[in-house]
Amino acid sequence: MMSDSPRLVQVRQNVLKRNDVAAGALRARFHGAGTYVVSLVSSPGSGKTAFLESMLGTLLGRYRVAALVGDLATDNDARRLARSGAPVRQIITGTVCHLEAEMVGSALDDAHWGALDFLFIENVGNLVCPSSYDLGEDLRLVLFSVTEGEDKPLKYPTIFNTSDVAIVTKTDLALAAEYDAESARRNIESVRPGMKIFEVSSKTGEGMPEWLRFLESRL
Amino acid sequence: MMSDSPRLVQVRQNVLKRNDVAAGALRARFHGAGTYVVSLVSSPGSGKTAFLESMLGTLLGRYRVAALVGDLATDNDARRLARSGAPVRQIITGTVCHLEAEMVGSALDDAHWGALDFLFIENVGNLVCPSSYDLGEDLRLVLFSVTEGEDKPLKYPTIFNTSDVAIVTKTDLALAAEYDAESARRNIESVRPGMKIFEVSSKTGEGMPEWLRFLESRL
Repeated sequence: MMSDSPRLVQVRQNVLKRNDVAAGALRARFHGAGTYVVSLVSSPGSGKTAFLESMLGTLLGRYRVAALVGDLATDNDARRLARSGAPVRQIITGTVCHLEAEMVGSALDDAHWGALDFLFIENVGNLVCPSSYDLGEDLRLVLFSVTEGEDKPLKYPTIFNTSDVAIVTKTDLALAAEYDAESARRNIESVRPGMKIFEVSSKTGEGMPEWLRFLESRL
Repeated sequence: MMSDSPRLVQVRQNVLKRNDVAAGALRARFHGAGTYVVSLVSSPGSGKTAFLESMLGTLLGRYRVAALVGDLATDNDARRLARSGAPVRQIITGTVCHLEAEMVGSALDDAHWGALDFLFIENVGNLVCPSSYDLGEDLRLVLFSVTEGEDKPLKYPTIFNTSDVAIVTKTDLALAAEYDAESARRNIESVRPGMKIFEVSSKTGEGMPEWLRFLESRL
C-alpha cells in the first residue's frame, strides 16, 4: 500500500509524537485552570453543531463555557454557535482533515477567554483522521445520526475505540429512517464493550437532559 | 500547522505523483478494454452502497458490470452489493482513509473479471481524503444525503471540485429533514459552477431513471 511506505510512516509517527507532547501540555493547562474539556468527532452532517448549540444554550446561564470549532473552509459553524451567546472561535484547517493539539493551543492563546468550566472542541467532520490526535480533552464524544446506518461502529472501529461516549443523534428521524436501535447498540458494544451511549434529538430536545446530567456529574 | 511541515508535504507530493502514474496506467487499461469507470465518494452513511446496489440491479441484465468497494475494516458493503448478482470485490484499506490507484489495480488483477462495460468503484466514506487520488475513473460522483445539511458543498469544496456529478440521496427523507433543495443547489453552484445534479431515493427509486439515462448516454 503506497501510504504505508516506511518513510511516510516514520514522518507520521514523528507528527503524532509531537502532537502527544503538545496535547500533554494542553491537558496540564486545562487541569490547572479547572476546565473540563469535551471534544466531538463525527462524520460530516451528523449533527455535531446542532448538538453543541443546544448544549451551549442550556449550560450558558450556569457555567462559564466556550467552544472551538474546526472546519476545512468556512466559519458557518462558528456563526451558528455564536447565536447561543457563548464565546466561539473557528479554526480553519485548510486541507487538513483533523484538528491537532497545536491548533487548539494557538486558538486558545488568541482567544483570551479567562477561566472556563467547560470547553467544547468540535473537530473537522471525519470518521477517520481525528482518531489518532489527542487534543488534551477529558472526554471524547463520537456522534452518529440515525440516518447514517447502524453499521458505522463496525466500519470505523478506531474512532469508536478512541472515544469515550457515543451520541446517537437525530432520533426524531428514527422512524422515517427505519433506525434499528438494538442493532446499533450491539455494534457499538462489539467494537467498544461497555461504551456509554446517549440517544438524542437536538430538534425536539429528547435525550438531552440525560446527557447533560451525565456531563455535569463529570465536573 | 504541524501537518504542513515541509518534509511531510514533500512526502505527500511524492505519494500523489506515484498515484498519478498508476492512475494513468489504469485509465489506459480501461479505455483499451472499453470499460466506463465511475467512482463514488461521500461521507460515511450518505447511501453510496444503497445507490450502487440499486444501480447494479438495474444495469445487470443489459451490461457487463462489476464493483470494487473500499472500507477500513469490514466487507459488509461487498456482501450487500453481491445480493444484486453482480461481481463485487472488497478492498480493505486498514487505517488508510481513501483508495489509491495501485489498490484498484491489484484488486482488478486478482478479480479476473474479463471485459466489462461499467466498473463502479465505491471509495472509503470520507469527504476529505479521497479528493486528491485519481483512480483512473471517467466520472467521479460525490453523494450527499438530504439529512446531512445543505452546507456540505461549502464546507468540503475540494471534494466537490474534483467530482463531476453531485448525487443528492435519501430524497424520501427530505420533508422529515426539512431539506432545502434550492439552498443546496445554490451551494453546489457556488463551489462548482455548472455541476450536474441528480436527486434520488434508492428506497423509492425516485430520480433513478433520470440518473441511469445520463449514465448510459456516456457509454
